[in-house]
Amino acid sequence: MKKAAESGEHDGYDLRRVQTTATYTFQNQQGWRRWRMLRPGLGMYHDVKRRLPYYWSDITDAWTYRTFASTVRILLPAIAFTLDMYRRTGEFYGINEALFASALAAMVFSILACQPLTIVGVTGLIALFNYTIYDIVGQYDISLYPQVMAWTGIWAAIFHWIVALLNLSDYMGYITDFSSESFGMYVGIIYMIKGVEELVNEFEVAGDAAGYLSCVIAILYFGSIYGLEKLGNSVLWKPWFRGILADYAYVFPTLFWVGFAHIPGHLRNADMTYVPTTRAFYPTQPRNWVIDFWNLPVTWIFVSLPFGFMTMLLFYYDHNVSSLTAQARQFPLKKPAGFHWDFFLLGCTTFVAGIIGLPMPNGLVPQAPVHTDSLTNYETRLDVIKTRDHEISEIRKPLTEATAVVEQRVSHFLMGLALWGTMTGPLLIVLHTMPAAVFAGVFFVVGWGSIESNGILQKLIFLNSERRFLAIENPLNEVPRKKIGLYIALQILGVAVAVAISQTIAAIGFPVLIIALIPLRTFLMPRWFSTHELSVLDALTANNRTVLASLGGRPAKMDEYNEDASEDEIDRAEEAGGVADGQESYIQRQRSRSAVRQRMGSITRATAHKIGSHSLGEGTR
Amino acid sequence: MKKAAESGEHDGYDLRRVQTTATYTFQNQQGWRRWRMLRPGLGMYHDVKRRLPYYWSDITDAWTYRTFASTVRILLPAIAFTLDMYRRTGEFYGINEALFASALAAMVFSILACQPLTIVGVTGLIALFNYTIYDIVGQYDISLYPQVMAWTGIWAAIFHWIVALLNLSDYMGYITDFSSESFGMYVGIIYMIKGVEELVNEFEVAGDAAGYLSCVIAILYFGSIYGLEKLGNSVLWKPWFRGILADYAYVFPTLFWVGFAHIPGHLRNADMTYVPTTRAFYPTQPRNWVIDFWNLPVTWIFVSLPFGFMTMLLFYYDHNVSSLTAQARQFPLKKPAGFHWDFFLLGCTTFVAGIIGLPMPNGLVPQAPVHTDSLTNYETRLDVIKTRDHEISEIRKPLTEATAVVEQRVSHFLMGLALWGTMTGPLLIVLHTMPAAVFAGVFFVVGWGSIESNGILQKLIFLNSERRFLAIENPLNEVPRKKIGLYIALQILGVAVAVAISQTIAAIGFPVLIIALIPLRTFLMPRWFSTHELSVLDALTANNRTVLASLGGRPAKMDEYNEDASEDEIDRAEEAGGVADGQESYIQRQRSRSAVRQRMGSITRATAHKIGSHSLGEGTR
Repeated sequence: MKKAAESGEHDGYDLRRVQTTATYTFQNQQGWRRWRMLRPGLGMYHDVKRRLPYYWSDITDAWTYRTFASTVRILLPAIAFTLDMYRRTGEFYGINEALFASALAAMVFSILACQPLTIVGVTGLIALFNYTIYDIVGQYDISLYPQVMAWTGIWAAIFHWIVALLNLSDYMGYITDFSSESFGMYVGIIYMIKGVEELVNEFEVAGDAAGYLSCVIAILYFGSIYGLEKLGNSVLWKPWFRGILADYAYVFPTLFWVGFAHIPGHLRNADMTYVPTTRAFYPTQPRNWVIDFWNLPVTWIFVSLPFGFMTMLLFYYDHNVSSLTAQARQFPLKKPAGFHWDFFLLGCTTFVAGIIGLPMPNGLVPQAPVHTDSLTNYETRLDVIKTRDHEISEIRKPLTEATAVVEQRVSHFLMGLALWGTMTGPLLIVLHTMPAAVFAGVFFVVGWGSIESNGILQKLIFLNSERRFLAIENPLNEVPRKKIGLYIALQILGVAVAVAISQTIAAIGFPVLIIALIPLRTFLMPRWFSTHELSVLDALTANNRTVLASLGGRPAKMDEYNEDASEDEIDRAEEAGGVADGQESYIQRQRSRSAVRQRMGSITRATAHKIGSHSLGEGTR
Repeated sequence: MKKAAESGEHDGYDLRRVQTTATYTFQNQQGWRRWRMLRPGLGMYHDVKRRLPYYWSDITDAWTYRTFASTVRILLPAIAFTLDMYRRTGEFYGINEALFASALAAMVFSILACQPLTIVGVTGLIALFNYTIYDIVGQYDISLYPQVMAWTGIWAAIFHWIVALLNLSDYMGYITDFSSESFGMYVGIIYMIKGVEELVNEFEVAGDAAGYLSCVIAILYFGSIYGLEKLGNSVLWKPWFRGILADYAYVFPTLFWVGFAHIPGHLRNADMTYVPTTRAFYPTQPRNWVIDFWNLPVTWIFVSLPFGFMTMLLFYYDHNVSSLTAQARQFPLKKPAGFHWDFFLLGCTTFVAGIIGLPMPNGLVPQAPVHTDSLTNYETRLDVIKTRDHEISEIRKPLTEATAVVEQRVSHFLMGLALWGTMTGPLLIVLHTMPAAVFAGVFFVVGWGSIESNGILQKLIFLNSERRFLAIENPLNEVPRKKIGLYIALQILGVAVAVAISQTIAAIGFPVLIIALIPLRTFLMPRWFSTHELSVLDALTANNRTVLASLGGRPAKMDEYNEDASEDEIDRAEEAGGVADGQESYIQRQRSRSAVRQRMGSITRATAHKIGSHSLGEGTR
């Protein structure tokens, strides 16, 4: 549309960004100024100062088709993830609570956040938290559960505010793919398990016929979305048509399979369970919205403190990694990040959610990067590789390039509006037509998306590929294979332990485990791996300049990614991540620099493109 | 093992083959000798004379692992296709009859055939025939069905012998991919429909829970085999391990899913139907093995004549195309073909099957080419494509080459033995443990295999691909896109009409339709397409020299494939068939010359390789 004007404006952004980057850092400071905790609120102040000038553009930039497509694309998974938890918390957290929490968070973050691209909602992990606490409290006196959860929220909020004030989000700069890949894999596995649990529940509640039918629908729903995304990223048809397939990959199959489930006869008679809904705008349980948290015995108030701390720890990692990946380097972002301010805001929503008895919302992995991805304009270019001394004179490859991101806060706001709408009576009835099986399918899609492109799996494939077919340019060749094996073995161990304890009452401890991977990487792993090896195997998850600005610059003590490293070296380290064993994808990676996206394991467009264009474009030949 | 000795022997084969090729032809003959019908038995005589010298080597060559793997690989689908027909012929053709027919045919053809690679058994099409005749006879007097079928077999046998004696199989030389692709697509669709029918029956007979569970098992069984074949043809692990995955792609999933179906609890309680078995070695109905065909009223004997003629027409096409594709050019075969003799033999088995009330066996599409494929030693070589002026210096591709085929008659014989074994009491009990759902899955695997790699679909993909990504070397570029569209439109029309009438009582007429495609191609299409266009779009299905020897040389009147055409031109025409839009597969095709295999639409190793190596090797990166 007004491309020239926009690009001119973007150049303006760049200039301003450089200025603000310089203003917030604790490196090269003297005396007490070096200690970030002694300068409370500095990060938040700079976050707001840095972002505020862009506020108006966040609204004016939004009037494009991509904003609409993105809202549609992310809405369904967002609703899906509100549907868990109902059964396992004694029906305390119902659909109304989950919708309310998501809607509240979407409103607050779309209007007030520094990072409006970070989609906020109810995750599978907080569900896990909530029912683990339910189980713990249930061992003593289950009637205290609402108040305990309220105090968990209050304590968590307090810890959030402390972290935000003391600029502790800066340490997110130390997060590398080592831990974020592990986290992505963990989340993927948990979602797959949740999908299976949803189906198992169907057998228990609705009987065998409904159970097996749910399996069929979940599998075919998964296959439909997966297939549409692959088709949308093949080289079939025109780019605009492929774009529609990819943008509405969730919408078409959802409409189809929900309709399918209601066909009279065998299907209808199977009597599957549907989304359980209750009276609009009222809590699921007969209670007031505000929980009487003042009635909790003091002992229990203090019992809630570790719960609150763990919640903060979970959100510290989960929410910030969502923001990091939603603003990863492969997205050509122009507007600055703001981790401190957003974490403060998250404290506020956590507080409100706590005292009115909602599941606490936070940043969604992998939906947040998928959201940014669906806001990105991609261009599929033609890469012609001329050959030498070969019967084929040239090879033609599709090459996907991200040209721009529609950076705005309207899509998140619209999502919030849609969620409010869903809370009304008429739309609750529509929601009630959706069989639980469809949501099992959504769990599979999102979970598998997080696993398929995960760096752990990619490195495993690299190690298991026949060596002669490995691309000679692949940086992983520079690392001894045993070291690659050790590296992913550490990741897999972390994931396995986290998944295992998630199945027990110790589940509440898993954030400690995930976060423990960061010091392991920072302090212990440099003893086992050379600097060069680490630079090939790993990469900073926060490597986008607009992101580092909010974290006080590149982290110290990470020799392999120090600030003196030339751009080329950093690029090189980055490319190593999304390991591949054929040059086609290597070429694409080198160009589109989307290794990080791949590593975080989201089913983003470009990832799907890489997979799709090859498997479909070539596979069906 | 004794590679040097073998290759020496093969050179000997070549010499002898050239001699025998020269002996059987009607081209360049004078006077009455030009008319093939006037020299009855000449084709059969030369078939036997040509093949007999190899008989001993057919046994001695067999002592390799590939023979075993091939027997295992083809056995399961062979059994699967014996299980249809039971319900829709008033339980006249039961499992015992189908096994008996397959075992009989396997014995006769493995011992006496000139083309022991052509796997013979009970097909879905003869099932369609049998129940269509059942429906027709049922409109008058269903008690006559056994005798009508006996006479159908007798008449069919007589027509077989006439065709064999008058050397009419020579006209198989006129079959091009135009009709054989259409036939492959038709067979694929019919098998998919049969899979669905199998599942629908489950709902009717065993209820909803069993029905939905069967759907789940069929889908996952299909996915398991498909996935294993893809993995087996990726670049993961060592070649020998991939080989095992591909060789036993049917075995592992079958064992797993059959076991799965018997897990006590929800699965067992679903009460699915299993393979219906009756007393070993006895006919399913209380009758003697020999049918009292002499008791049929004379009117009905003559009513059976058109049924018999149609059966012959079906087998003329189906059996011979099975032989053609089992001996297609991409297989480096050394031993000569023998169409006339084998068709005579097929008359004999048809006769026997008719009078003892068995479904009449014939060549299996697509199992026959899959069988040859599983007997082929493939080598995955490395193709390094050096590039010019590109950031990537080289591209590494796996390149699969067929190095040799274990040409023997032992695998077919072992298959026959295994089928006899299955007819005994103990193994019938094992067979009875297999749920019908597994066979629905087999139908999907075989059916989809016939569709996925079919030339019609490939040309459709070519037309629908974005043009800029099409390989410039692709010969299809030389044909106007409208002409390609017209070409596949004609094919699709043929397939659609054939599928449509297969659902009606007119199903018995479908062989006429399929065979009508041959004169359409030979006489009408040269008016609509230029010689060059046809040479790009189409290719002779019988283009292997060892095959043409038995058909009296290359057919006349096919200008685009005349005998004067240089080898290069023929190769070129061939390559055009398995149309692709990227050069990778084009390269492979150019080397491995497996276009025909692709076009016939079998899930052969090399096809799967092409698909698998790309979608998996690159897809999962």
